[in-house]
Amino acid sequence: MLPEQMLAWGYTRNCIREVMEYGMIRKQQIGAENVWDYSIGNPSIPAPDCVNETIAELIRGDSVELHGYTTAAGLISARNAIAKELNSRYDLGLKGELFYITCGCASSIAIALRAVLFPGDEVIVNAPFFPEYRVFTEASRGVVRVVPPREDFQIDFDALKAALGPKTKAVIINSPNNPSGMVYSEETLEELAQILRAHEEKIGETVYLITDEPYRELVYDMDKTPNAMCWYDDTFICYSFSKCMSIPGERIGYLAVGSRMKDAEAVYAAVLGAGRALGYINPPSLFQHVIERIVGAHSDFSQYKINRDLLTAGLRKIGYECVEPKGAFYLFAKALEPDAKAFCEHAKKHELLLVPSNDFGMTGYFRMAYCVDRDMIGKSMPAFQALWNDYH
Amino acid sequence: MLPEQMLAWGYTRNCIREVMEYGMIRKQQIGAENVWDYSIGNPSIPAPDCVNETIAELIRGDSVELHGYTTAAGLISARNAIAKELNSRYDLGLKGELFYITCGCASSIAIALRAVLFPGDEVIVNAPFFPEYRVFTEASRGVVRVVPPREDFQIDFDALKAALGPKTKAVIINSPNNPSGMVYSEETLEELAQILRAHEEKIGETVYLITDEPYRELVYDMDKTPNAMCWYDDTFICYSFSKCMSIPGERIGYLAVGSRMKDAEAVYAAVLGAGRALGYINPPSLFQHVIERIVGAHSDFSQYKINRDLLTAGLRKIGYECVEPKGAFYLFAKALEPDAKAFCEHAKKHELLLVPSNDFGMTGYFRMAYCVDRDMIGKSMPAFQALWNDYH
Repeated sequence: MLPEQMLAWGYTRNCIREVMEYGMIRKQQIGAENVWDYSIGNPSIPAPDCVNETIAELIRGDSVELHGYTTAAGLISARNAIAKELNSRYDLGLKGELFYITCGCASSIAIALRAVLFPGDEVIVNAPFFPEYRVFTEASRGVVRVVPPREDFQIDFDALKAALGPKTKAVIINSPNNPSGMVYSEETLEELAQILRAHEEKIGETVYLITDEPYRELVYDMDKTPNAMCWYDDTFICYSFSKCMSIPGERIGYLAVGSRMKDAEAVYAAVLGAGRALGYINPPSLFQHVIERIVGAHSDFSQYKINRDLLTAGLRKIGYECVEPKGAFYLFAKALEPDAKAFCEHAKKHELLLVPSNDFGMTGYFRMAYCVDRDMIGKSMPAFQALWNDYH
Repeated sequence: MLPEQMLAWGYTRNCIREVMEYGMIRKQQIGAENVWDYSIGNPSIPAPDCVNETIAELIRGDSVELHGYTTAAGLISARNAIAKELNSRYDLGLKGELFYITCGCASSIAIALRAVLFPGDEVIVNAPFFPEYRVFTEASRGVVRVVPPREDFQIDFDALKAALGPKTKAVIINSPNNPSGMVYSEETLEELAQILRAHEEKIGETVYLITDEPYRELVYDMDKTPNAMCWYDDTFICYSFSKCMSIPGERIGYLAVGSRMKDAEAVYAAVLGAGRALGYINPPSLFQHVIERIVGAHSDFSQYKINRDLLTAGLRKIGYECVEPKGAFYLFAKALEPDAKAFCEHAKKHELLLVPSNDFGMTGYFRMAYCVDRDMIGKSMPAFQALWNDYH
């Protein structure tokens, strides 16, 4: 007898990893150059040089200190460096002592939820959303409520208000968004904050905003991503250096408790407790030292913008209906039949690896990660055309 | 309103980290050279040269591949390398595809428990034990049953049998042991296996043996640590490269499902599910590549043996009653008053940082981690003498 939920999560993977793993096998069968793999958001551009340069420098130093345990929340020097850099871009008043460095954004979200949820508490997620939100919420015995988006993929506030209730404990947002590429506007965040504050007052309980922002620096047509914490105090920032520095495998990110959050110190203690509960001892030490030295550095994103423009234009020319991505490195497009899963399954016949929108909490769309080799985009267009022709 | 259990775990830390963090503050106050810090098992000897040499080589390669996502269980090439090396030392028939590379041993244990426990299931731990076993068990809604040891710190089988019941789902052992330094003999493991097999038959359910073995290679008076999986099939091996390679901060280890375990494939699926539930995406990629290349390498442990002998002899000469450590890098000694906490608190007056045995599930002892600078041992002897004098 094994817990059914663990078996279910173990056997299913999430839809993204499922397509990615299919792709790995398929590439072995027919050669990587014959598979058009748009499945996973694995940055295709190298880390900025300073990452490996800093590693090279650090390994010439004291091994015992470099590779040794740190406090559970990470080196305070690293936490202070991260807080200072982020405060320099957003006026957030963040404090290093309320940062908890993590093994990446997924850990940050899992820990934040574990820190605040009671069994049966509700967590509102805005579709389309990263499928693991559901896993992390249910693993902490919470209940997910999905709010569908507006046509332009901003928050549908009527739907949000309808979803808020006496058991609402947290709302998760993700901007720039995976999978839609949408960025929430200042107006959206301001209205969201007003609604949540009103709801806090109504139920007499804190409603936490968990903002999942690994793509924060990845925006194309604006200066910077508006940050929700500027409007709402009871906010956790979940971040990963995965995308901005092209180091997703290294699992280094953080959970920041807003310094103006109600009972911030107690919440931070609950975060420490949740980290222990989930088996974390400390985040990887070498990369804590790296981040402390180079926080603020990022990869050269220009390739992603070129890819975005190429892919969007190419698909629109064929006839596909795409959401114009403002950030991240995903293109979200309408499937050519209502059942996105069937559509993506069919696309495999043309060696196109696309992720159906179902697990993102929406039907009828598919996601393409365009953090890929530029040449692949042009070469894959005949396959997209053939797929189109199958439906027309 | 925040979950009480998370607050409790967040505010208390474990006893080891509490003493360590007191030490960090105290060293700033009076200088590190005036504090006799035996609190934490942070290896004091450098990583073997091949660790940093391999890193230096790897960072000259392809950044996208090196720092990219891997599958959740880790690179199959790394898993195969680890399995092969371990099989070469123990005839276990382990398979790479049943390995799950983790962020260290703590994660391995948390994931194993999460994979198999139903609410209310019982987990037997053998005192003295690593305090986080309790956190990981309770976080997965299990119940800890503590079995006191024999005088020689082998398993007390009568006490074990008394603790086994219809709800027993798992037994955790740790050999070489933190904090006692004891190594379970072949006879102990054989008898343990017989008892567990008989109990499985009696209750008609699998009883999992979780063997926590980060100190496996750290034994002084014998060839190698007997491995429990040689006697019992339904075994999870939890391992970390922290101690053998002096890289505890890097968080790299594994969970191995025995290939002869009942329903091994299903259990492995539950492990994958549990990893997702706890927020793990993949273990740190750079260190996966490192381990793949150098698995089997270890630091030069000769310093630990010298330290063990120095500390044991020094304390015995004063009059302290010590357990002779056979492995790991801890010395476990009798406190000079029944209340170990009060004793360790008192020891701080002599700037001695000792960890009381209470959180290890026993009263009346204290733990010293002797992975320290050799000079400190000699220099701290007057403080141990003064402490002794306070009680005599």
